Amino acid sequence: MPKISEKALHMPASPIRKLVPFAEAAKSKGVKIYHLNIGQPDIETPQVMLDAVRNFSPKVVEYSHSAGMESYRKKLSGYYRKHGIDINHEQILVTCGGSEAIEIAMMSCLNGGDEILIPEPFYANYNGFSCQADVVVKPIKSVIENGFALPPIAEFEKLITPKTKAIMICNPGNPTGYLYSKEELELLKDLVLKYDLFLFSDEVYKEFCYDGAAYTSVMHLNGADNNIILLDSISKRYSACGARIGALITKNAQVMQAALKFAQARLSPPTFGQVGAEAAIDTPQSYFDEVNKEYTTRRNFLVEALNKMPGVFCPMPKGAFYCIARLPIDDADKFCQWLLESFSFENQTVMLAPATGFYSTPNSGKNEVRIAYVLNLDALKHAMTCLEKALEAYNKQ
Amino acid sequence: MPKISEKALHMPASPIRKLVPFAEAAKSKGVKIYHLNIGQPDIETPQVMLDAVRNFSPKVVEYSHSAGMESYRKKLSGYYRKHGIDINHEQILVTCGGSEAIEIAMMSCLNGGDEILIPEPFYANYNGFSCQADVVVKPIKSVIENGFALPPIAEFEKLITPKTKAIMICNPGNPTGYLYSKEELELLKDLVLKYDLFLFSDEVYKEFCYDGAAYTSVMHLNGADNNIILLDSISKRYSACGARIGALITKNAQVMQAALKFAQARLSPPTFGQVGAEAAIDTPQSYFDEVNKEYTTRRNFLVEALNKMPGVFCPMPKGAFYCIARLPIDDADKFCQWLLESFSFENQTVMLAPATGFYSTPNSGKNEVRIAYVLNLDALKHAMTCLEKALEAYNKQ
Repeated sequence: MPKISEKALHMPASPIRKLVPFAEAAKSKGVKIYHLNIGQPDIETPQVMLDAVRNFSPKVVEYSHSAGMESYRKKLSGYYRKHGIDINHEQILVTCGGSEAIEIAMMSCLNGGDEILIPEPFYANYNGFSCQADVVVKPIKSVIENGFALPPIAEFEKLITPKTKAIMICNPGNPTGYLYSKEELELLKDLVLKYDLFLFSDEVYKEFCYDGAAYTSVMHLNGADNNIILLDSISKRYSACGARIGALITKNAQVMQAALKFAQARLSPPTFGQVGAEAAIDTPQSYFDEVNKEYTTRRNFLVEALNKMPGVFCPMPKGAFYCIARLPIDDADKFCQWLLESFSFENQTVMLAPATGFYSTPNSGKNEVRIAYVLNLDALKHAMTCLEKALEAYNKQ
Repeated sequence: MPKISEKALHMPASPIRKLVPFAEAAKSKGVKIYHLNIGQPDIETPQVMLDAVRNFSPKVVEYSHSAGMESYRKKLSGYYRKHGIDINHEQILVTCGGSEAIEIAMMSCLNGGDEILIPEPFYANYNGFSCQADVVVKPIKSVIENGFALPPIAEFEKLITPKTKAIMICNPGNPTGYLYSKEELELLKDLVLKYDLFLFSDEVYKEFCYDGAAYTSVMHLNGADNNIILLDSISKRYSACGARIGALITKNAQVMQAALKFAQARLSPPTFGQVGAEAAIDTPQSYFDEVNKEYTTRRNFLVEALNKMPGVFCPMPKGAFYCIARLPIDDADKFCQWLLESFSFENQTVMLAPATGFYSTPNSGKNEVRIAYVLNLDALKHAMTCLEKALEAYNKQ
């Protein structure tokens, strides 16, 4: 029997998937599970987007342009301009989700063995994409005490070698909810210019900034156009994760030309999703206002409830719809499994993501969990009651 | 300015794209172009598929399972069983087009530097996917004289080294239209068993077999379940190229487990496309009968017309909707560019794909072109008149 590749052996399995069999077993016992473990929002997709797909009129579902439908890219450049990002449609490559944007960016910019610096905790699939591209992730620890702010630039500089090719950030952050300030981003800009690095910025949560906090995109920075690659997706913006529409955006013409070659090999991004995404640009501001209000309410409740629990600390996130909480536990993986396997309160329990999966440094995040506030307030209340009871029970074992 | 990757530099640009600027220039001069250069069929997508997408009812466009919607995979396994392929839904990974199926198969099975044997001429993007996966393509020449039949097994064996990990075929063939016989496939099976190789079979044109010829899938072969990976797509079957729905199918559980890790990193295949694809399985047989009849008529006309032209030879393809014709020309790239740049007959011209792009061996296919018969008979007639006039004019220059 022929062997699978070394790459496949090294490819990390999703850290959350390990818990799925335990969740299924709990469900089969009739336990209700509050899913705070994944970023699948319960918010409705804008009507204007669904209507466009439902009104799809061509008789043939054709390939689009490999860079995405020109009409969509043109309209999208208008969307970005409204957000202070001055780009034209030729600086946009439409991708199959934000995932493909990251894959193509890595292949376009990094050689096998090259190193990418990423503040940790970070979105776990960055590990998978790096493995695919034979890229080496060098994590730089951010800490819960300051809400996972940008680590000191000196910490980045310590890790820079001739192999270092890029820095990657997620802003607002998954899993941290941290929103980088303009000052922090300026520091990163200076760093990438100093060392001639790419700056990859995953900004798929940019619509989710709270308390009136200003969102600064890397595309708002001046003087580093050739270094900056913006990675975007409509998945969270329009609660349309399944449409699989993302974008790689850069003013670096060489990178765009390279990215287009990878895009041409896979022919085109999905047509139905693009039709929906193009229409979704007309989503009224009221939709975002309501979503923002809803998530703010959820976040405020959640963070307050967490911090009231004995031994729990949760910084107040300014963006995305995640928070990381430090719990009075020995081992987050063990605890999250125990929640599903051995605990229930009034026949209910909670599924959380152990933060260990978001760290690249071994043994990090062992007393932290990521909580996605993608359920409504009522469900969140029940979930927090469960969690409080669970922490009591877990530590009495 | 940071440099793009070596991989991006080596990534082949699509051979057909080089002609696009010349086609655009011709169009802007008012010349009508018959596009025989691409595999975008003009056939209508089945109504049942379009209706399903138009009736999409969920309020949230959610991620599907990373392997694809379970309901779709279950129905799809029924589709395959109808075609004599006995697989269950856990042996199917739904992908973003056939392209992603090939990408994931390569990453799952081959290490960087490993070699894959492919009879040439072959689908040009195999080069791109190989480049992405750092896989080395070793071409084995098939010849126009026998219609691009399987080259002698001895030719494969000559190239097998410790680095050889897989053989890849496309059946029915793009760009050749050749349909492998059961006997040829049995020879390949014996070969992959003898040398412990994977056999990747791209069968996206399987609905397009003519003259009552039997289609044999690699999945119909016995005793090589762990070696065989079937790569499929609905793009051509339902004329739904833009839906971006393909599949990687294997009974090798290790490969499927590996493939699933890559699939999980990119989250899920497109939801709208899957909804359409699931419904499309109910496409009535009459649709395929009509399509088959239409392509048979086109093919018969095309091949006859080509062989009537002085100095032209075109074998009769048994499958897909392509043929390769040998023309009395010095250089197919030059000729195809000349057709767009310097020729027109009654203000019309033809866009063809130079066969050079489908060969990996330098200087091969220089007097061959690929013709996709994706236009209706009337357009094909005009196109063939153009080509005949063009060959006369080209050789009088």
